[in-house]
Amino acid sequence: MTIHKPKVLFFDVNETLLDLTVMKQQIGAALGGKEELLSLWFTTLLQYSLVLSASGQYKPFGQIGAAALQMVAANNGITLSEDKAREIVINAMQNLPPHPEVKQALTLLKKEGYTLVALTNSSEESLKNNFENIGLTPYFDQLLSIETVGKFKPFTDVYNWAANKMQVQPKDCMLIAAHGWDVAGAMWAGWRAAFVGRPGQQPFPLAPETEINETDLQKIAGILIIYR
Amino acid sequence: MTIHKPKVLFFDVNETLLDLTVMKQQIGAALGGKEELLSLWFTTLLQYSLVLSASGQYKPFGQIGAAALQMVAANNGITLSEDKAREIVINAMQNLPPHPEVKQALTLLKKEGYTLVALTNSSEESLKNNFENIGLTPYFDQLLSIETVGKFKPFTDVYNWAANKMQVQPKDCMLIAAHGWDVAGAMWAGWRAAFVGRPGQQPFPLAPETEINETDLQKIAGILIIYR
Repeated sequence: MTIHKPKVLFFDVNETLLDLTVMKQQIGAALGGKEELLSLWFTTLLQYSLVLSASGQYKPFGQIGAAALQMVAANNGITLSEDKAREIVINAMQNLPPHPEVKQALTLLKKEGYTLVALTNSSEESLKNNFENIGLTPYFDQLLSIETVGKFKPFTDVYNWAANKMQVQPKDCMLIAAHGWDVAGAMWAGWRAAFVGRPGQQPFPLAPETEINETDLQKIAGILIIYR
Repeated sequence: MTIHKPKVLFFDVNETLLDLTVMKQQIGAALGGKEELLSLWFTTLLQYSLVLSASGQYKPFGQIGAAALQMVAANNGITLSEDKAREIVINAMQNLPPHPEVKQALTLLKKEGYTLVALTNSSEESLKNNFENIGLTPYFDQLLSIETVGKFKPFTDVYNWAANKMQVQPKDCMLIAAHGWDVAGAMWAGWRAAFVGRPGQQPFPLAPETEINETDLQKIAGILIIYR
């Protein structure tokens, strides 16, 4: 059976391309050394990004991350000022390394002729700075932040906007992401999707299954290059 | 200064009226005894409820809770079937006791002439069963589940629908809730709000402050009865 190549590959950024485990120490230190609270903090950040969008409001992802850190800290008996929380989160988020196989996988996909786009909930400035710092910029045809839409993934509007921006139909788009909610949202917007099963990440049991589900990007690239 | 009485008091249910700490043991047991994962599980449930609404999808709150439990379990090396997860969550959610001061506070407010409405993300069936089991039904003029709207709180549509259902303007509504995201969403929908600062609950630092912020419902009732 021939599987057609998607016209554009969209990559989620945090966790999918960038390794968040290095934040564990910095965020953990702000939470009295409780590094196991990283998941709760990041989930709270994601929840509240949707709370804002659901209410027709917008704040940059980094600011929501700082607010979530203040909340998780307060629940653990630690008072963090807004300024301090922002400093910690913004510093932590701008210095994330790529996962080890990322550059190799992107090189393979680029060589195969794929159009590669980053699509992130982070602000445009944070995306561009981080990619410059770690040398990811040249691999991508376009760097997109949801900032322009004013709603966070997985709101359907975001995927529609991104497809439109790249002048393709939803069915010609594929999202590659390490978050169950992101691939679910993309598929419900009519996109194709590949799930990167990184440690600590699970597909959402109530969503359709993605056509690709592999543990890293190199394996996903290996499948995408045999599509016709 | 005279503060006017809201025409209708809407109460969030889980955590605000009902004590979720008793779920800790049941959910914790399903997670290999890690009771500290209750917050992560509940936050994941809330996040994914919004993921569905953001994508124009709907599933009952209990089913999302079961899916969230499967995800958190899998991240802790535990495989839970869909059926088993549903059984655990539905059983845990239908047997929640009210916080100790709840009935006394509701009695006081009812005596003062307030219209009392429950407004929950849980399904209508689950709300009604639970309230019957613990004798909360007679305190309320109306029991509302977001099921009718097909979107979860804090989507603005939910608050608009609830105000409309009670035939009042948003400005005449007050939400009383122990969740930062819920009071934030209500205020962004034009409602007034009171925050119940239960243990483990924080207001959202990026939202406006609620006009009332107390640690339990009895204290909140004490303030509401001096409004004119």
